[in-house]
Amino acid sequence: MVNAGDMNGSGNLMDFLDEPFPDVGTYEDFHTIDWLREKSRDTDRHRKITSKSKESIWEFIKSLLDAWSGWVVMLLIGLLAGTLAGVIDLAVDWMTDLKEGVCLSAFWYSHEQCCWTSNETTFDDRDKCPKWQKWSELLVNQSEGASAYILNYFLYIMWALSFAFLAVSLVRVFAPYACGSGIPEIKTILSGFIIRGYLGKWTLLIKTVTLVLVVSSGLSLGKEGPLVHVACCCGNFFSSLFSKYSRNEGKRREVLSAAAAAGVSVAFGAPIGGVLFSLEEVSYYFPLKTLWRSFFAALVAAFTLRSINPFGNSRLVLFYVEYHTPWRRKTTRLGKYPVLEVIVVTAITAIIAYPNPYTRRSTSELISELFNDCGALESSQLCDYINDPNMTRPVDDIPDRPAGFGVYTAMWQLALALIFKIIITIFTFGMKIPSGLFIPSMAVGAMAGRMVGIGVEQLAYHHHDWIIFRNWCRPGADCVTPGLYAMVGAAACLGGVTRMTVSLVVIMFELTGGLEYIVPLMAAAVTSKWVADAFGKEGIYEAHIHLNGYPFLDAKDEFTHRTLATDVMRPRRGEPPLSVLTQDSMTVEDVETLIKETDYNGFPVVVSKDSERLIGFAQRRELILAIKNARQRQDGVVSNSIMYFTEDPPELPANSPHPLKLRRILNLSPFTVTDHTPMETVVDIFRKLGLRQCLVTRSGRLLGIITKKDVLRHMAQMANQDPESIMFN
Amino acid sequence: MVNAGDMNGSGNLMDFLDEPFPDVGTYEDFHTIDWLREKSRDTDRHRKITSKSKESIWEFIKSLLDAWSGWVVMLLIGLLAGTLAGVIDLAVDWMTDLKEGVCLSAFWYSHEQCCWTSNETTFDDRDKCPKWQKWSELLVNQSEGASAYILNYFLYIMWALSFAFLAVSLVRVFAPYACGSGIPEIKTILSGFIIRGYLGKWTLLIKTVTLVLVVSSGLSLGKEGPLVHVACCCGNFFSSLFSKYSRNEGKRREVLSAAAAAGVSVAFGAPIGGVLFSLEEVSYYFPLKTLWRSFFAALVAAFTLRSINPFGNSRLVLFYVEYHTPWRRKTTRLGKYPVLEVIVVTAITAIIAYPNPYTRRSTSELISELFNDCGALESSQLCDYINDPNMTRPVDDIPDRPAGFGVYTAMWQLALALIFKIIITIFTFGMKIPSGLFIPSMAVGAMAGRMVGIGVEQLAYHHHDWIIFRNWCRPGADCVTPGLYAMVGAAACLGGVTRMTVSLVVIMFELTGGLEYIVPLMAAAVTSKWVADAFGKEGIYEAHIHLNGYPFLDAKDEFTHRTLATDVMRPRRGEPPLSVLTQDSMTVEDVETLIKETDYNGFPVVVSKDSERLIGFAQRRELILAIKNARQRQDGVVSNSIMYFTEDPPELPANSPHPLKLRRILNLSPFTVTDHTPMETVVDIFRKLGLRQCLVTRSGRLLGIITKKDVLRHMAQMANQDPESIMFN
Repeated sequence: MVNAGDMNGSGNLMDFLDEPFPDVGTYEDFHTIDWLREKSRDTDRHRKITSKSKESIWEFIKSLLDAWSGWVVMLLIGLLAGTLAGVIDLAVDWMTDLKEGVCLSAFWYSHEQCCWTSNETTFDDRDKCPKWQKWSELLVNQSEGASAYILNYFLYIMWALSFAFLAVSLVRVFAPYACGSGIPEIKTILSGFIIRGYLGKWTLLIKTVTLVLVVSSGLSLGKEGPLVHVACCCGNFFSSLFSKYSRNEGKRREVLSAAAAAGVSVAFGAPIGGVLFSLEEVSYYFPLKTLWRSFFAALVAAFTLRSINPFGNSRLVLFYVEYHTPWRRKTTRLGKYPVLEVIVVTAITAIIAYPNPYTRRSTSELISELFNDCGALESSQLCDYINDPNMTRPVDDIPDRPAGFGVYTAMWQLALALIFKIIITIFTFGMKIPSGLFIPSMAVGAMAGRMVGIGVEQLAYHHHDWIIFRNWCRPGADCVTPGLYAMVGAAACLGGVTRMTVSLVVIMFELTGGLEYIVPLMAAAVTSKWVADAFGKEGIYEAHIHLNGYPFLDAKDEFTHRTLATDVMRPRRGEPPLSVLTQDSMTVEDVETLIKETDYNGFPVVVSKDSERLIGFAQRRELILAIKNARQRQDGVVSNSIMYFTEDPPELPANSPHPLKLRRILNLSPFTVTDHTPMETVVDIFRKLGLRQCLVTRSGRLLGIITKKDVLRHMAQMANQDPESIMFN
Repeated sequence: MVNAGDMNGSGNLMDFLDEPFPDVGTYEDFHTIDWLREKSRDTDRHRKITSKSKESIWEFIKSLLDAWSGWVVMLLIGLLAGTLAGVIDLAVDWMTDLKEGVCLSAFWYSHEQCCWTSNETTFDDRDKCPKWQKWSELLVNQSEGASAYILNYFLYIMWALSFAFLAVSLVRVFAPYACGSGIPEIKTILSGFIIRGYLGKWTLLIKTVTLVLVVSSGLSLGKEGPLVHVACCCGNFFSSLFSKYSRNEGKRREVLSAAAAAGVSVAFGAPIGGVLFSLEEVSYYFPLKTLWRSFFAALVAAFTLRSINPFGNSRLVLFYVEYHTPWRRKTTRLGKYPVLEVIVVTAITAIIAYPNPYTRRSTSELISELFNDCGALESSQLCDYINDPNMTRPVDDIPDRPAGFGVYTAMWQLALALIFKIIITIFTFGMKIPSGLFIPSMAVGAMAGRMVGIGVEQLAYHHHDWIIFRNWCRPGADCVTPGLYAMVGAAACLGGVTRMTVSLVVIMFELTGGLEYIVPLMAAAVTSKWVADAFGKEGIYEAHIHLNGYPFLDAKDEFTHRTLATDVMRPRRGEPPLSVLTQDSMTVEDVETLIKETDYNGFPVVVSKDSERLIGFAQRRELILAIKNARQRQDGVVSNSIMYFTEDPPELPANSPHPLKLRRILNLSPFTVTDHTPMETVVDIFRKLGLRQCLVTRSGRLLGIITKKDVLRHMAQMANQDPESIMFN
């Protein structure tokens, strides 16, 4: 055994990449992965398969399977994510309607499905088909009047409360990680952080179920963020089936990036937008190969969802239900009682939302109505214009008209709904339930936009001689489209919240099919980004990451301070010297003491304490495992055995115990910078290469170490010292 | 003077970033820039401005202007690129028509413009308005008949030849860099290579003019690639107006990336597609800030083009004229005589193209016709179906019908046109004239797609009981849309040539407005990428870059070989040792000799030849400048002066000449890796950090150096050794 152990590592310079003990090469929870190392391990695995593939037909087939496993995983993710999204849509549809009534022919039908199958109804009063009964009709046989209204109101609140209670209880008991949108955490995970269980099977199951519940309860929240989380859970699940991905945290993250794209693809029915969202907003390491795979996964997911066809039209989901906002709070007094908090917020939401037609319906319907222009057949209150009886015009070219009573009522209701949405979303955001961000932001923007649009329209109608209107708006022409204002408003609001640009515009036009409005949408995206950036550079997700204190090195932050590596490295001046290992003079006991006394993730290995010439880096976790393993299996290894990291054992006195060779766990290519390296460069290196730590040398001598946390701390410190500087980028 | 020079650098660790002599910090032609250093220089400049901005209001305003100069440059690029594209479109329109005839009312009107202003014409025979005269009508007063045909044919060829001759002569005499599409070179430049004059004002002017000429001449080439080059020339011009960009090669490349996006934006009228093309296909270093700016530039460019409105409709350019192909040749016998080559190819093109209606018209019109479905009013030969007189149907839902005589004629003509296009484009591609790639590829794909589409349509009509048709195609229904086949074919062909995926789909739907066809388009893009990758991993641009031998480190190539830094570094075993400088023991003459005898770009500086401990790196160019400068200005410096890179001068004998301090040109933070570092990691570092060279150390001792060219050479070598391995990624 001892000899075998000895022989194993010698002669092969790269043997530290092998996995001689179980668990070597894995990471602890809430630690950061080493991207370069993961990549290197994957290349090794890949090389082994390639060289084996020449040995036999079977190995060749296996190597082909391995090469295609990436696409297979994408296919599976696309299928599952699309299916789940379809099921969620159907369930939400049904349960949202359940708050108001039930279908007598089949209780699992939603209002629309119930009345589809009904033959008696014409297009116009499809809403009032006899098979669909409101609760008041069913229970007390009254469809109109105050008591029926109160009963419906009461049951609406009760259903909402029970959905919300069930959801928050499920999250609390089974999967605490299922709360929130999950995007900030996924961003952090994709940047290389380990959060065990965040993408687990329980989270997948509970998040899917509770997402249906909370969206159905009518809370001011949305489902796109949670759907991204659900898709990433699917990605994690399928990658655990293939050793190529399950054993490599770097490769796994490539799959997760693609899964995020699939998630947005099904959330909005926007496959291209999904890929761009993953690229622009979520991902950290996004090579072109991942771009292609994301594209494929998003395609499959969109296609699957389309096949399920939850909305009964051949388009993808045009608007789903979802709500979030740009405001946030860290904690409230209620926040300590998450279940009570959810109940209270749900009760308030249900009580206030029911009377106002613009808040009672689902937010997706609201947005859809706000985006749409008033045609001749439109029955919406928003389209109650006074028509000129003398004018005959084609249906699709209706000129600007004076607003009727309905429009004014709608304006008031919209204004109240806007205020309510803004306030309630502040409270909803951050509760311990799954909640998304896009649709609430879009609804706020769309309401404001529609109101401005109607205002401008009426101004233009009544004052078409004003300079601003004179040149382009003749009387009797259709010069202002309030629906477009709503669309631009929604894009601008969403852009301000998330700071998306390209992906925002693509999602908006995939969502609305409004390719011709690309220029106003782009202008809105750029303007909202400028304005929002003037208040602070962080989008909602980055703000959330900082709030939670995750070690996330944002690619968007620029570091422009004049500090050097020497200012950041530890040990600082006056601190005890760096804990290092020597290559061939420390005993097992020395090392065990060092490990016990410190909590560093790893130790640099130097030639000797005097020369301080660096030869490599050993991970704490692997040192512990190696020593444990050696003590158990190698007879000669005792506490005062010498540990050596060189190729050949040091010359020892005759009676000394058997030495322990540890070259195989030594990283012979640790990353080094000189003490004069500008921190700007160091930040760049950490960001681009995904390092965990970097050693600092001068003239070949080891001076100190910089970890990712040191870098983040330093960046935060510098940003606080000089908050102004960030304005100038 | 001497003392001032001495004092200057002391105490400031970063003074090597100052620019004490003219030309320090610039690069030579055909050299690679150092990205990290450029970034560092920009941060320094930025810091100076920020700290100055607190001194006075004026400095504060200047700092604000500096911060906004990026957006200003984008605005200017967008305006100029949009204007140039509009002017080119108008000029091409006019000159293309000039080959066939002239407008009598105003000779500068194109056929369409001429007949617009004419009142006599109805919609149907707009083509035959009296003001527009074919050459035969004007010269011999005959519009029909053999002699008129021959005269028109002859003049068509003559005009084509004179346009082509003028173009090739202009390129040859004034701007040799104006030839080709320019995209491979722009890719190389964006990756950090210097090609002086490639983006100069002469190239801009000549490329714009000759682009009009060659497109008008009817050659099988397109204008989108050249438009990207033109936009990049605009970008280069405007960045030379702002010192922030003109003095920093890294920042300049950010502007150029955005300019490329603006170029595609106006070439296709696809602003989002342009940004994605720049991201996916062209750019090397593309931070999110550049994404936003590209987005803005693309927006402004598209808006400008739209305001010029060259096509007289409110959409952006739906199809412009352009042709290229997936085949390439390095040289032919004719290639030695570029002018003759152009004349011969133009003559052949014109002679063969004129008789076939599908090649005589501009390629953009051809593609537009192929994409469009047959409506009731369609007069195209492709729509000559046999209508069932008993059937009355709405205009927009015409069922599948049997093909008439015209369709069969069209099929033959299309087949001939397809063969001709494929062959002639092989010869056109690579001539010394501006030429683009997209439209020729799209036309080839669209022709093939339309033919397949018509074939399937007729099969489905005549055999609707076949299993493949039975389930979804009832008799009398409209189940096959040949236009969609053409669109998908065009996307697939273009995807195969360029290997674009996401940007391809976005461009296609921005081009056609066919948002509902996103799923077949995505499927076509993925399939064509898979199929094309099976033949070879390189797209046309990468292939071109390799053909020209540019030092381009492709982000798409994966390096998976098991070599280490020690295998690649120089000196190899048996070679003379590395040329190094010592920190304080070499004389000026020693260094001058070293510079004369070697042609390295720089030299590592070590403590002493014995210890070989690395302290920094000095650029050859800056050493030469520093010595020249010192000899001219510092009296005490002679050939046997000691050069020192330390902070304090070495202790010298009393009578020794004045030493020369060179710390300011020493890069104190050279990039190092250990000799055990896997080459995979080294490749990654070069790629992500944009290094020019990297030093190799072991235990703090300098062993060798790896340059970008060494890396590229090694990658090429390994790829040749094991061509199979690339299949498995």
